[in-house]
Amino acid sequence: MLIKLATNCGFCFGVKRAIRLAENNPNSVTLGELIHNSKETDRLKNRFAVSIARSIDEIESGKKVIIRTHGIEKKVRERLGEVTNDVIDATCPFVTKPQRIAEQMNQEGYQVVIFGDKTHPEVKGVLSYAGKDAIVVAAADELRRSGLKDRVALISQTTKSIEKFASLAEDLIKRCKETRIYNTICNATFDNQEAARALAKEADVMLIVGGKNSSNTKQLLSIVKEDCSDSYLVEGKDELDRAWFEGKKLCGISAGASTPHWIIEEVKNSLLEF
Amino acid sequence: MLIKLATNCGFCFGVKRAIRLAENNPNSVTLGELIHNSKETDRLKNRFAVSIARSIDEIESGKKVIIRTHGIEKKVRERLGEVTNDVIDATCPFVTKPQRIAEQMNQEGYQVVIFGDKTHPEVKGVLSYAGKDAIVVAAADELRRSGLKDRVALISQTTKSIEKFASLAEDLIKRCKETRIYNTICNATFDNQEAARALAKEADVMLIVGGKNSSNTKQLLSIVKEDCSDSYLVEGKDELDRAWFEGKKLCGISAGASTPHWIIEEVKNSLLEF
Repeated sequence: MLIKLATNCGFCFGVKRAIRLAENNPNSVTLGELIHNSKETDRLKNRFAVSIARSIDEIESGKKVIIRTHGIEKKVRERLGEVTNDVIDATCPFVTKPQRIAEQMNQEGYQVVIFGDKTHPEVKGVLSYAGKDAIVVAAADELRRSGLKDRVALISQTTKSIEKFASLAEDLIKRCKETRIYNTICNATFDNQEAARALAKEADVMLIVGGKNSSNTKQLLSIVKEDCSDSYLVEGKDELDRAWFEGKKLCGISAGASTPHWIIEEVKNSLLEF
Repeated sequence: MLIKLATNCGFCFGVKRAIRLAENNPNSVTLGELIHNSKETDRLKNRFAVSIARSIDEIESGKKVIIRTHGIEKKVRERLGEVTNDVIDATCPFVTKPQRIAEQMNQEGYQVVIFGDKTHPEVKGVLSYAGKDAIVVAAADELRRSGLKDRVALISQTTKSIEKFASLAEDLIKRCKETRIYNTICNATFDNQEAARALAKEADVMLIVGGKNSSNTKQLLSIVKEDCSDSYLVEGKDELDRAWFEGKKLCGISAGASTPHWIIEEVKNSLLEF
């Protein structure tokens, strides 16, 4: 069986930046998981003593705090200032952007519509800047049930599929007099999705390596399944099942933006042993 | 054979207003056809001596001039001021709106994309306000061949189909960082299209009454043909062909926004005689 890695996959700019910030600030604490990959956050804890606080209440006063790549809610950012002045912002710049757009559009009187998962920390953060009329929709049918103003601004969670985003926009355009559409899907997401899609067309089995709570990783799985039904999401080599690869000719591998290279390598090496 | 008129069809607000202005200003001249219906412009000429000038050069100095419903180009408007001060503006307010939007978006640094027919007077008028980067596209494949800036504003000719407009927007969203979409399709167009579509689903023959150079009339024909293949565009009763109605049970009638009621009635009465 041949093994082929997608031309674009793994760590994106924002994740690399966040990890560098964490490595350069040992003994700090991240508010929530820095990135959605528990193997990597375990490594940061073991090697750099960078621990995770689940809420502000767990943070001791004056401690150095790193804001996660996904950003945090406006009111949490304000409360954080009451606990410590030593804050390092590892929010991905591609996430800061939709936060700023949401805030500005709300100020200009547009109703903000966010395409995303309302339980995801990135979306919660962006929503907190979007004003009281803002809504989060995960799919076109949710949008159809929502009341809309005449002037609407649409933004996307950075890790969503461009196809679904554009098709949601199509519904909005028909219902609103003015629609401002910000394509805030990040380039890394877009490039990884395109590369995974291309690889899935030639492979007869696909592996997506990444955190099961990572939005962009789950998105990759859903995309490759369209062209390759035998596709699996694994967090690491221990989850591989020999039976998946029996009789297969080409195994394609892609990985989420929060998946470190060493995990991808481990998975690849285990496959070579099969 | 039953005959049924679409619940919405014929003269729209802007056309009614323009005709009232022409009737109230006998002996004036319109720059181009006031509306796209030669039977109605003939009536205005015969009863109110309102004639048509094909260009500014045909207008005698100081003459009272009516600007057509479709509006005119910015530079033509300026030149007109050199010939006469007696100008009555019958531009439909729904056309003035995209002109203003095009001008403002260009000033704010957006590339303006107009969905429409580049030979149509309304589109020529709007384009003249849209700046040097502006483009006119009639279909999605034309858009795909065009270079685009990062920030684009999309507007529509008032008489286009909302479905095609939204699908064009979908392409833009994928290619641009920011897309401002103004749904400038007028309500009358939208209502007429919906009513024609509904009627075409139950009729076994459809007649669209209107000018063959009228954009919204041609659009209606294209829409009803999707559900009723035996659909015909006629300018008046003289074009009816008895063979079209042989063995038919229900004839649906719709009419363009520039089609006067008296022409629709004539067509209907001729059908009753068959």
